[in-house]
Amino acid sequence: MDFKQYWSARQKKVEAALNKALPSSSTKPSTIHKAMRYSLFAGGKRLRPIITLAAAEVINGKYDNALAAACAVECIHTYSLIHDDLPCMDNDDLRRGKPTSHKVFGEGMAVLAGDALLTIAFEIVAATRPTARYNAADYVKEVAYAGGSLGLIAGQVADLEGEGKKTTPAQLRYIHERKTAALITSSIRLGAMSSNATEKQLASLTEFGQNLGLAFQVIDDILDITQTSEQLGKSAGKDLKAQKSTYPSVLGLKKAEAEAARLTARASAALKPFGKNAEPLELIADFLLNRKN
Amino acid sequence: MDFKQYWSARQKKVEAALNKALPSSSTKPSTIHKAMRYSLFAGGKRLRPIITLAAAEVINGKYDNALAAACAVECIHTYSLIHDDLPCMDNDDLRRGKPTSHKVFGEGMAVLAGDALLTIAFEIVAATRPTARYNAADYVKEVAYAGGSLGLIAGQVADLEGEGKKTTPAQLRYIHERKTAALITSSIRLGAMSSNATEKQLASLTEFGQNLGLAFQVIDDILDITQTSEQLGKSAGKDLKAQKSTYPSVLGLKKAEAEAARLTARASAALKPFGKNAEPLELIADFLLNRKN
Repeated sequence: MDFKQYWSARQKKVEAALNKALPSSSTKPSTIHKAMRYSLFAGGKRLRPIITLAAAEVINGKYDNALAAACAVECIHTYSLIHDDLPCMDNDDLRRGKPTSHKVFGEGMAVLAGDALLTIAFEIVAATRPTARYNAADYVKEVAYAGGSLGLIAGQVADLEGEGKKTTPAQLRYIHERKTAALITSSIRLGAMSSNATEKQLASLTEFGQNLGLAFQVIDDILDITQTSEQLGKSAGKDLKAQKSTYPSVLGLKKAEAEAARLTARASAALKPFGKNAEPLELIADFLLNRKN
Repeated sequence: MDFKQYWSARQKKVEAALNKALPSSSTKPSTIHKAMRYSLFAGGKRLRPIITLAAAEVINGKYDNALAAACAVECIHTYSLIHDDLPCMDNDDLRRGKPTSHKVFGEGMAVLAGDALLTIAFEIVAATRPTARYNAADYVKEVAYAGGSLGLIAGQVADLEGEGKKTTPAQLRYIHERKTAALITSSIRLGAMSSNATEKQLASLTEFGQNLGLAFQVIDDILDITQTSEQLGKSAGKDLKAQKSTYPSVLGLKKAEAEAARLTARASAALKPFGKNAEPLELIADFLLNRKN
């Protein structure tokens, strides 16, 4: 399997589906649709939607019915970045080398663009075709859980409240599990659900997602201090500067690397029941866990 | 029918259902759940949820299956107030005589509390029991449309962009239809859908809702300049001070009053097909349109 080709083929499908799902830039009122599209098409890797498609493929070899959910999780991810970048949150001026939404459209419009992407995510995911085991109510509940006050938002809150304070390893894990791993896990679960996964299959993929999601964030933390800005393609040492607690800062670099390896091994083990069918997810996991930027 | 008793009985049901639907104040992370509850239980009249219940009753005399949708529209309404009050939007310090969310919890937390209420609205509405004609996908789509970039958010955007500029009657209608009437209309539609309304019944109630929603806002505009702060129980003349375009400021008071009467008559006419069954909605419309605060 050619991984690059696998990725870029699905990336194109996601781009096209997102483009179709969002109102055009000229739809009135055009400012909000321009703002939604500005952040949604800012050159993201489409990691979450692609793992949604890959999870669907692991179950039944197809990903057509996972496209809506794939778009929905990308909308949730993008909304969370827009709100996260606001002056009252992380106060970031740049995202992927481009000015952040509030820098371009103003703070009020950035709040609304995030709100609108969050709202449309539910409309999009609800259009997923029901399977024998799951329906719109299940898909919506999954997105609401991942994005809600016990998931993504819980992570943001704990992050916001922890700034400048000493963080224990347990608190850090709490933040990362919610801020990063929850949506990655649901991205995988939604793909599997749209392919009518059995309860057992869903449990295995959930286990895979939780470990992959956490490992992804630990590695992100590690790269922030071990790589140069040039290698990362974004400012290195950002966490240190913002006095954010990270795995290396709380556990030390050695222990953080060991933790990443442990989580990676657990993620990999969870794919065992799928045998050769799990190849796409395995390659994605390899790619994420061995990346240098 | 004793209207006061009718209202207060349903209000109690809505309070109880909202209380059950929201995580408790002590659920971790507690700050976000305290913030969600602070605004949701700030003494609102529960207008939107009660018209959801009333619309359900008009169709089949019952409102049990409309309770989830009723809670969802109140969560949407409350989220929109929290974000609307932010310094980067209307910058209001007080709401119903109490400090606004960002004044109590800080701006970052207020953004997140709004996000969390918006998110949970979809989880709640998706739990509505499907009827022969409608299912979770329909309910979610309805909420997403009312709250999204073509509904509520479109109204906010046009409002934000219109500040300090001269507004035409058509632009003002555009704003009010989206900022106020869209969610009121969907509140009614959701109640009707949860009671398995026919297409024709839904069309009549949609017509009712659009006219009621618009009339409600025109009257709000009129009261802002004709009543004292004491009569209103909130600062009178707020729109004038904020240089907001309103029906009286754009059309003049006389024409605004005529427009309110015209819309009211149209709303009333749309209820004709329901005969005596429409009594609750008629009384609610009377109450809203003849109110003095």
